Amino acid sequence: MKVTQNTDEAPEQACPIAPVVDIVFSRWTTPILWALNEFGRQRFVELERRITTITPKVLTQRLRQLERDGLVVRTYHAEVPPRVEYEISELGRSLSTVFASLAEWSVNLAEVERARLAYDGRAAVRRSSRN
Amino acid sequence: MKVTQNTDEAPEQACPIAPVVDIVFSRWTTPILWALNEFGRQRFVELERRITTITPKVLTQRLRQLERDGLVVRTYHAEVPPRVEYEISELGRSLSTVFASLAEWSVNLAEVERARLAYDGRAAVRRSSRN
Repeated sequence: MKVTQNTDEAPEQACPIAPVVDIVFSRWTTPILWALNEFGRQRFVELERRITTITPKVLTQRLRQLERDGLVVRTYHAEVPPRVEYEISELGRSLSTVFASLAEWSVNLAEVERARLAYDGRAAVRRSSRN
Repeated sequence: MKVTQNTDEAPEQACPIAPVVDIVFSRWTTPILWALNEFGRQRFVELERRITTITPKVLTQRLRQLERDGLVVRTYHAEVPPRVEYEISELGRSLSTVFASLAEWSVNLAEVERARLAYDGRAAVRRSSRN
């Protein structure tokens, strides 16, 4: 993780991954990028159907943000009725190594779960010894 | 990114990286893990000084969350006055490949910036053509 020399800066600023986290992992962007990557070019309603719990308003906002960041390409087809399609851009696809490293780390989720159970167990003991 | 076969599930649930994102990239956890990884075992006040814009209340909450998740180890020294130190755990250190892949991707931030400028330029043109 030693990728910055500016150790005197606040980590929040010095931390080189913070901007990437903001762009890629803001709420809802991950499942949108995932769905576009998995299922290819698709229309708004298809995306909406896939990410069942998202509201149309939030999906619109996030797609606009991802388009602005260059991660998603929006194509407007001037037909009757007009048709709009979304797909992941080449830049968006370049995130796949990042996503793969996250997916790989997810084998550790079981260990996180064990840590939580142990922590909650200790907390319960502390609570009962106080009563 | 093709790491799930359950393509019928909602991507939000099917997306295997969503839980990792929740654990590792919730607001403030990234700079805390980063500071602990960069500067080693340290006391609350040292962390607080490094992550200048965090409030003590939020730092306390996030450290507790990270300890519960097994990513941070808290050591209580029963001295007078008592001393508490925090350090990154082995499990926390295993995130370094994830962080490295994010840091590596950050070379693309310039392209994100170019995409934003282009998008904002097009939006400005649309606005002025409407007036």
